[in-house]
Order: sequence, then C-alpha cells, then structure tokens
Amino acid sequence: MLSATLKQLAEVVGGELRGDPELQISRVFPIDLAQEGDITFITHPKYFSKLESCRASAVILAPGIDAPGRNLLICANPYLAFAKILTFLQGPAPTGKGILTGAWVADSAVLDETVTVHPGAVVGENVTIGPGTVLHPGVVIYADVIIGRNCLLHAGAIVREGCRLADRVILQPSAIIGADGFGFAPDGSSYYKIPQVGIVVLEDDVEIGACSCVDRAVLGETHIRRGTKLDNLVQIGHNVEIGEDTIVVAQSGIAGSTKIGRHCTFGGQSAVAGHLNVGDNVTIGARGGASSNVASDQVVSGVPLLPHKQWLKMTMSLPKVPEMRKELQQLKKRLAELEALIQED
Amino acid sequence: MLSATLKQLAEVVGGELRGDPELQISRVFPIDLAQEGDITFITHPKYFSKLESCRASAVILAPGIDAPGRNLLICANPYLAFAKILTFLQGPAPTGKGILTGAWVADSAVLDETVTVHPGAVVGENVTIGPGTVLHPGVVIYADVIIGRNCLLHAGAIVREGCRLADRVILQPSAIIGADGFGFAPDGSSYYKIPQVGIVVLEDDVEIGACSCVDRAVLGETHIRRGTKLDNLVQIGHNVEIGEDTIVVAQSGIAGSTKIGRHCTFGGQSAVAGHLNVGDNVTIGARGGASSNVASDQVVSGVPLLPHKQWLKMTMSLPKVPEMRKELQQLKKRLAELEALIQED
Amino acid sequence: MLSATLKQLAEVVGGELRGDPELQISRVFPIDLAQEGDITFITHPKYFSKLESCRASAVILAPGIDAPGRNLLICANPYLAFAKILTFLQGPAPTGKGILTGAWVADSAVLDETVTVHPGAVVGENVTIGPGTVLHPGVVIYADVIIGRNCLLHAGAIVREGCRLADRVILQPSAIIGADGFGFAPDGSSYYKIPQVGIVVLEDDVEIGACSCVDRAVLGETHIRRGTKLDNLVQIGHNVEIGEDTIVVAQSGIAGSTKIGRHCTFGGQSAVAGHLNVGDNVTIGARGGASSNVASDQVVSGVPLLPHKQWLKMTMSLPKVPEMRKELQQLKKRLAELEALIQED
Repeated sequence: MLSATLKQLAEVVGGELRGDPELQISRVFPIDLAQEGDITFITHPKYFSKLESCRASAVILAPGIDAPGRNLLICANPYLAFAKILTFLQGPAPTGKGILTGAWVADSAVLDETVTVHPGAVVGENVTIGPGTVLHPGVVIYADVIIGRNCLLHAGAIVREGCRLADRVILQPSAIIGADGFGFAPDGSSYYKIPQVGIVVLEDDVEIGACSCVDRAVLGETHIRRGTKLDNLVQIGHNVEIGEDTIVVAQSGIAGSTKIGRHCTFGGQSAVAGHLNVGDNVTIGARGGASSNVASDQVVSGVPLLPHKQWLKMTMSLPKVPEMRKELQQLKKRLAELEALIQED
Repeated sequence: MLSATLKQLAEVVGGELRGDPELQISRVFPIDLAQEGDITFITHPKYFSKLESCRASAVILAPGIDAPGRNLLICANPYLAFAKILTFLQGPAPTGKGILTGAWVADSAVLDETVTVHPGAVVGENVTIGPGTVLHPGVVIYADVIIGRNCLLHAGAIVREGCRLADRVILQPSAIIGADGFGFAPDGSSYYKIPQVGIVVLEDDVEIGACSCVDRAVLGETHIRRGTKLDNLVQIGHNVEIGEDTIVVAQSGIAGSTKIGRHCTFGGQSAVAGHLNVGDNVTIGARGGASSNVASDQVVSGVPLLPHKQWLKMTMSLPKVPEMRKELQQLKKRLAELEALIQED
Repeated sequence: MLSATLKQLAEVVGGELRGDPELQISRVFPIDLAQEGDITFITHPKYFSKLESCRASAVILAPGIDAPGRNLLICANPYLAFAKILTFLQGPAPTGKGILTGAWVADSAVLDETVTVHPGAVVGENVTIGPGTVLHPGVVIYADVIIGRNCLLHAGAIVREGCRLADRVILQPSAIIGADGFGFAPDGSSYYKIPQVGIVVLEDDVEIGACSCVDRAVLGETHIRRGTKLDNLVQIGHNVEIGEDTIVVAQSGIAGSTKIGRHCTFGGQSAVAGHLNVGDNVTIGARGGASSNVASDQVVSGVPLLPHKQWLKMTMSLPKVPEMRKELQQLKKRLAELEALIQED
C-alpha cells in the first residue's frame, strides 16, 4: 500500500478537509481496529459513539457531524469515499509484462503490448486483447474472442469461442463465459443436443463472480450491460439480457431468454424462470423466485413473489397454521352444537 | 458455417420439401430476425402470424399447415429439425490434431492418434483415451481414467483418478468429475475423513454442465446412465445413480446414495435428499425438494412434494393466511357472542 | 490398496479381535457386496439380519452383538473403524516428487523439498509451502500465500494473494480461496468497486469442496477454524468467521460478515444472511434460511427458522390451507345464517 497526505486524500474524494493537511495516512481500517496512521470512516450515526475510543489519525464523516480536535474528511457519501481512498492507497495497476514464459498464445492472436499473460494461460486463434488487460495463470481464451482494455481475468476464468468483453471487465477465478446453453430437442425417446452457436457479450465494467456461469446464446447473444455485477456461483441461462447496474447476489439463477432491466437487485439464492420480463429498479429478496413477469419499481420476495412487506407478514403467519387448523375444528364443533340447540327449540 | 441446398437439408431432417430444391441456405435463425438466405422454423401455431413479415428464404413447418409461395420443409418435429439443421450447418467436427505443444501427457497414457490435447491440458499415468476425443486447455485427467471416443472436454474440466467416461460424453468448462464425496465419521469431537475410493461412471451421450460436480463413490460407483444431461452448477453426491435420459436443470442437488430413474426432469434449484428412490418419468418442479421416496410417473413440486396442481393451489392460497387469521378471530368472537346470547335465553 | 492381517487392523482401530488374527484382509466393502478377503461393517442393528448371507471374511461390529463362527472386530464406533481401516489400506501418502517439468514456480517462492508440484500448476512470488504438500495440475497459487504441511490441493484449486492455509488442508478441484468479496459502493447511479484487500485464513484440517468459494475479506480476514468441512458449491462471503468442526453441506451460502460457531451443521442449500451471529452446536436443516441471529444448541429449519419439529408440523399443515379457506367461508355463512335466525326471534 502507498501512503498519502490527508490533503491528497481530500482531493481524491472531493471532500472537505478539517485538521492537518500534511498528516500521513497509509491505511483505511474499521473504527474498532484502526491504529495511528490509519484513516477510518463512519457510515451510520449509530457508530458515532465509537469515535471517542478510536485510535485512527483521521476520520471520514458525513456533513452535519463534527468531532472537534479530530482530523476529518467531510464527504457527502463516506462509504464511497472509503472505497475511493482504499483504491487510491493500493497504488496504480502494475505495468503490463507482456506474454510471460509458460503462457501459450496462438500466432494469429493480436495482443496489445501492455497486456500481461501469465504462465499457464492459453489464448486461442484470432483473439484480440486490448491495452492493460491481465490474464492470470490458467485463464483460457478460446478462438475469435475480443477483449477490451484494462480487463482483469483471474486464474481459471474461461471465455469460450467468439464471446466479447468490453473494457474494465473483471472475471473472478473460474468464472465461465460462454459455456453451451442447456438446450435439447426431445426426439421421442432421447434428447438431441441443440448446438449453441450464439455468443456472450459483457459490456464495460461488468464483473462476474467466482464459478459463475454465463451461457452462450443458442442463436444471437446473451448480453449483460454496463456496470452489472454478478456474485459467485450465479447461473445465467442462454439468451438472457440484463440491463445496466444490476446486482445479482450469490447462487442466484436466471433461466434462459429472460430479460432483466437496469438497477435491479437479486438477493442470494433467488431465481427467475425462463422467457420472462423483469422491469427496472426491481429488488427481489433472498430466495425469491419469479415465475411470471415483474413490473418495474418494486421490492418483492417469496414464491410466488409478493410485495416484500406482505411476504414478511405471510411468513410470520404460516407457523400459526397448525394452531389455526385446531381452532377451525373447534369452531366447527361449537357451531354445530349451537345449530343443534337452535333447531331443538 | 457451411451452406447447403434445401434438398440437402430435407434429407438431413427426413422432411418433405415444398419449393425450390436448389435454394442455398447458410443459416438457421429465429423468425423475427431471419434474413434472405436463412431458414427459420415455427414450433408453435401461435407464431404462425409472424410468417407474413418474415424475410427468411425457407421455413420449417409441422404437417397440416401450409404457406403458399414459400419454400418449406414439412417436418413432424420442427424443433428437432431445427436442431439437426443447425448441427449440419456447423460442419463436421475438426480433425484430431494429436498432442499439441504445451500439453503434458504421461508416458504411460494410451491416446488414439486422432485425439486432440490442447496446450495446458494434463493427462496422468495409465490413462486411456479413444478416437476423436478433444481435451481443451486446462483439462486435467488424473491417473487410471478411461475415456471413450468422440468426447468433448472443455477448458478446466477435471476428471479424477479411475473414473470412466464412455462415448460422446461432453464436459462443459470446469465440470468436476470424481471429487471426493462428502463423508466424515464423527469421532466424538472432530470429523475423521472417510477416504472416497470409489469412482464415477458416465455412460454414452452424458453431458455435464459448467462448474457441476459429480462426486466419486465412497466404495463402488456414482453412475450416470446414457443420455442424461446436467445443467450448470449441479451437485451430484457420492454413490448416486441416475437413469437414462434424465434432465437436471441448473443449481439442483442430489444427495448421496439416492437412486433416480429414467426420463426424469428436475427443475432449477431443486433437490433430492440422500438415500432415497425416485422412480421413472418423474418431473420435480423448480425449487422442489424430495425428502422421501417418489413413485414413478408424477409431476410434483414444493417441499414436501405435492402433485404440481395441488402445490400451485397451495402457494396461491398461502398469502391469504394473515387474512384468514383475522377472520378466524372474528368468527370466534361472533360465535362466543352468539353462545352467550343463547345461554342468556 | 494394501493388504493387512486382522490383528494389524485391530491395532489400527483399537478394537477387540475375535477369530483368526492372521486372516488377510485387502478391502473394506459394504455388507451386500463384500466378498472373501473383504472386511465389512455393521453400523446399525437393522442391518444385522444381512450378516447371515454375507460373504465377507470379517466383520466390524459394535459391542454387545455377537456372531459366532465369524471373524470379528468389536469396536465402540464401527463407522469410525471402517473409515480408519479404509485409510490404512490405502497405504501411506506418496513421497514428494519436487517440482515436476511443466510446473511454473516463481524464483522467490520457498517450497520444502518434499512438496510435489505437478505439471500445469503455477506458484507465484514469495509463496511459502511446507513439507509433504501436493499441488495437482492446474492449481494456481498467487503471490504471498503461505501453505502449511501435508496439504492436498486438487486440480484447478486457486488460492489468491496473501491467503493462508495451515496444515492438512484439503482443497477439492476448483475450490476458490480468496476471490474478491462482493462489495460495491453505490455512487448514486452506478456501483464503485470496493477493493477487497483482506485475506482468507483456513486453519488445520479444513476441507473445501469442489467449486466452493471462500471470499477474501474487504479488510482483515475471512476465517475458517480447525476441522471445519465445506461440501461442493458452497459460498462463504467476505469477513465470515466459522468455528471449529462445523459442517456445511453442498450449495449452501453464508453471507458477508456473519459469525458461525463450532460444531454446527448446515444442511444442503441452506443459507445465512449477512452480519448475523449463529451460536455453537446449531443444526440448520436442508434449505433452511437464517435471517436473524441463532442461539446455540438448536435444531432449526425453514424460513424463518423454527424448531425443526415445529417446522415439520407446519410444512405438513400448509397443504391444508386451501381446504381451510373453504371451511372458513362455510363457517362464516353458517354463522351468519344462525345470527339472522337469532335476530329474527
């Protein structure tokens, strides 16, 4: 990690500096654990009480709070400022090292000279890779793939034939781009494999988690738009389209041909069935499952999906069902008795 | 892709040709997007209305429909015909290239000369591989594995010691065959690892999805029979047996020692507990979970499994439970009032 | 596999020998399939009836049962004895082979001479690896990783920068240690990536399943303590802590910053939300989901978690809800009629 003055950091985050501009900071660290030389951050007023015993040399705070005698960076979004300072202190990305010994690159591949290909990485025929992109050991790029600039492909990431990655795409270890979609035509007794001849397109700033799979289209494209982030072990079926800045948490699955809008959030282990439309700004809670279209601007949970608050109410009431059954039987009995009594009259 | 005459394609699919037998076709494409030179397909009457504006040069149709003035292939199963034409237009599989530079093959391994081993693939001691099989970069075959003919192992697929793959088996990227089953003997405080000394057998035409795991048996075999297809991120526990032509959709899990029949379908994120029997022709809906045996010839969903229609009815009624609780309380109150009134008399 | 006398095996398991001490045993096998020369085991009295037709030469039994005329090993824990004999008959671990041709090890890495690095494995700068550890083909160790003694890293396992593995850690194929945690700061429109600069620590005897992912901490450590075992396709979020001897079955997910105690068991496809505490000796049933803290010493299931027996009762009663709705309507109608009747009087 680098070291920086508080003044430099104020410039990095566009924040207001209060205190010593020449203070040296070498680490961002949580408020409970920060030491001298660290900057820490308070993202919620409930943590403000921890400030008193905090040993950090500086603190990132939201406007409207003060901490007299402290070195402060006042930022509209302290969490974002924390992230930006963390990035800055990591220093610039390492310079490209070229094709290292032990890497295998096809003669027909065109790699910018600032690309780094580590030992054990393999690049196929007619691949194009832009400036600053890094391929870690064990990365495999099949033929005819196009990769943009400043992408980071971690070990074991695989990109199959013809797929396209734009700029600043990150593949975590063993992310699988362009495996065959799951398509078979029943022939009466067995399943006949439908060749999956489409591709996957990942736009700028997309990140795909470890062991997540984005299947190639049967025809055409599976397409993930700018800024969308997939966590680990996520399954994206063939011909799916996902809009910009959407978040898919770990172990979720989107089935084939479904279209997802922008600024959506899918909780962990959630799912969307195939051939559906999900609008923009939709949040599906953890383990939620969409079995029909979902309109924009909703927070929904459960199977079938309900407005989140209604779902919460429902899940809280379900454990009462056994007792409700008993009560219902008792009511029936009492009512029958009453009916008998009335009829006797 | 190749090009073919409509007459050739009619022979490929065994369909009836109506129109110009010499028409050149170079692509299959969906009805909305097809251009001149393409053949398209209609798999459901509801899409028939799209035919009028379709620009494709030829159309695959089911018998009983006509489209005067169009070049047609009349096929009993248009979806299957589409798949077969797509396969045909891809051309024959590439010729075997042998062991390429950058691949590591043990001296004791016996590979047919038509095998292709790409750079970065590793083949262990005493492995046998049949004609036409392709190992992409990063494939690892442990010792004593036997692989048949015309198998396709994508990058990062791993087959551990002693496992057997028959003919035409496809492993998608990072499919893991023969990892240790999850077996531990509690010794009172910790867990003692039970060596998993069995193997995995994959019969002809089995396909395993990306990042799917088929664990080796503790003793004996984990066995997947002919034609069964696993989607991505599927977990198959040790000593599981799966019958022929069964479909397991993404992110499903079958726990150890369970036996599954033939022609079953498991929806996405479904599960079967361990040591169970599931019959033939069973369909378990997405997210369904079997916690006891399942008899043949059923369509079931939910946890516990219910007949699918009953499950649908149930899931639709559960959101009413909070309201039912209120109604129940009101009924109790009204009944108590009535009882009091009667007793007063 | 080795061969051993019954006397040797009695010493291995600390059991009481009845019968021929010089009997040669070369295999452990299940009671239904065992042949002459095999030892088998009975772990539950319900299998005792199978003993009569069993062809095994010797049997592992719990105390208090006898089988006259049979060669027996009487052991307090027959299942543990089975596991120990299976281990013994496998023979000792193979001797270290050093860095094999086709492996890539950075000059600055320090590997004990008894380490084995297979072809296609890559070891980065400043890595330290202890005696007896084996790296299979395709394993990738990033810079600054520390690995202890007698670890076993299967093909495709990846350990990212700075992570630490203690002794006897097992990584199944494509286990991913230290991928970036899923952390992004919303900047109002897009997501800004928060660098994940922490590490993962795996203590002694931890085992991580195939394609399971343990994410690195954003700051500090993701930490899994001694003896804990993860099955395949498990997701462990950043900054999670898991105590000793905990079991996590396949396809489960633990979200970020959650703390799990010791001796817990998580059933298949279960989940724990982020920033929670789960105590010691907690069992969460398959598909269970914790959305709030869980106190120690409980067996719980469902979403929200309920005591397991209550959950079972609930799930059995839910299919009755559609019928309950009808009954409720009928009761309302009958009650209204009765009320009308009374009022008429």
